[in-house]
Amino acid sequence: MVLYIIGLGLSDEKDITVKGLEAVKSCERIYLEAYTSILTVGKERLEAFYEKPIVIADREMVESEADVILKDADKVNVAFLVVGDPFGATTHTDLVHRATELNIPVVPIHNASIMNAVGCCGLQLYNYGQTVSIVFFTDTWKPDSFYDKIGMNSKIELHTLCLLDIKVKEQSIENLARGRKIYEPPRYMSINTAVSQLIEVAESRAEAEPVAVPAYTKHTIAVGLARVGCVDQKIVAGTLEELEHVDFGGPLHSLVLAGKMHFLEAEVVRAFAVDKGSFDKYAVVSQH
Amino acid sequence: MVLYIIGLGLSDEKDITVKGLEAVKSCERIYLEAYTSILTVGKERLEAFYEKPIVIADREMVESEADVILKDADKVNVAFLVVGDPFGATTHTDLVHRATELNIPVVPIHNASIMNAVGCCGLQLYNYGQTVSIVFFTDTWKPDSFYDKIGMNSKIELHTLCLLDIKVKEQSIENLARGRKIYEPPRYMSINTAVSQLIEVAESRAEAEPVAVPAYTKHTIAVGLARVGCVDQKIVAGTLEELEHVDFGGPLHSLVLAGKMHFLEAEVVRAFAVDKGSFDKYAVVSQH
Repeated sequence: MVLYIIGLGLSDEKDITVKGLEAVKSCERIYLEAYTSILTVGKERLEAFYEKPIVIADREMVESEADVILKDADKVNVAFLVVGDPFGATTHTDLVHRATELNIPVVPIHNASIMNAVGCCGLQLYNYGQTVSIVFFTDTWKPDSFYDKIGMNSKIELHTLCLLDIKVKEQSIENLARGRKIYEPPRYMSINTAVSQLIEVAESRAEAEPVAVPAYTKHTIAVGLARVGCVDQKIVAGTLEELEHVDFGGPLHSLVLAGKMHFLEAEVVRAFAVDKGSFDKYAVVSQH
Repeated sequence: MVLYIIGLGLSDEKDITVKGLEAVKSCERIYLEAYTSILTVGKERLEAFYEKPIVIADREMVESEADVILKDADKVNVAFLVVGDPFGATTHTDLVHRATELNIPVVPIHNASIMNAVGCCGLQLYNYGQTVSIVFFTDTWKPDSFYDKIGMNSKIELHTLCLLDIKVKEQSIENLARGRKIYEPPRYMSINTAVSQLIEVAESRAEAEPVAVPAYTKHTIAVGLARVGCVDQKIVAGTLEELEHVDFGGPLHSLVLAGKMHFLEAEVVRAFAVDKGSFDKYAVVSQH
């Protein structure tokens, strides 16, 4: 039989495709990958919709217990559910590897992910450069490689999608040190936090290299997107400085830094602007 | 009521989401945008599945008859179906504009598109630069701006997704001149044609600027993808020169030029290689 890897899309239980739903219904066991992204509904809503029980697969399980997930998959179908598209995250690469070793066919079922759904902000998908990840800074660890990547994109006038950190099933340093399997509540980076970290890095880089062309500044136009594809989706455009104080509500949040905008892109983004005057002042727009 | 813009995904009638299908069922009129992409099934299969008639909307209709599509949409729901995701193409921007002017709410329903489904070739989505389009060359018109865009991407080691031309409802020059509404059969660019045009441009650029670092050469590793998401999907990796002669079968085709590959990416791509020896010789792989 087969291992289905099924994309669930972005919002709720009804974003699965008809093909995906039929596949789920044919499965003997169903696992849900729940540590790289989330839907707006929990496992119970999915179980009620599928009329089948679901096992939550955490990172530990996916990375070290592939054989448990794949048990009997030569005789029955098994589903591995992933928020977004099956190929959005790399976390289940090992699972696919192991299935291949066991000669179990792997059938992906595609769906929307933030990587294409972000098109809803008005900045065209073919004008994006590389995507960056922004992780939570700590007092002692402030990884800022996103700055250089954004710089490479902005130098050739491209937009940058920033994926914001998710911490699920993390242990505190104390619990980790004592070997206690007690986990912190999940944390999802807000646009406000991402922007504040972006500005912090821009300022320290500007101080360190005052003559360099900055990758972006606090006046760079950006678009914050919260809960894309959900009924309460929120999209707001503005300078980074402005977005730092916009309330976007609950997770998940994403952020796009605009490069040079085609005037048709700018028209759509402007409609989302928190302050149209400031948008007109700082937007970099091409007329052709 | 509302104008739904519903992504159909990539392959057949069952790639619509459950949410999308419920929306279609609630609609009084259904239009299918059929000139920027295609599914593997025709309008009839969709009609049978929805149990509703569908009107094919060609470019002319979408661009100049928005009011026909939107007629009574304040009183009934109207669906506009798009292959892939609603925001993949810009062709229906005018329709959305017009709906907004008429105070008709526009509700997009997301789905997979080639822009995220291309992740299935093993090259990670966050390592792509800007996407390029490759259009059919004629004797007198050989637009080659893709060369410089690929160069910008490859300079910073990123992959490039190439979208290949689709010609639907085109008129021959003679029929156009005589005002005859006779249309040529649809044409979908094959990976072979795209590669041959890519190599042609690379050679003429190398001749014109022999000292410049080339954007790519005929030895650059690329991945051809045909019918992504379909049961007979075909993915083959190789040098451009090798891919020029691989038979990928029917449309739609896409092509990815690999930048520097992470070794985990290279491992997946290598499994698709037409000649592993040549892959090992020409692949540019980073070990960290």
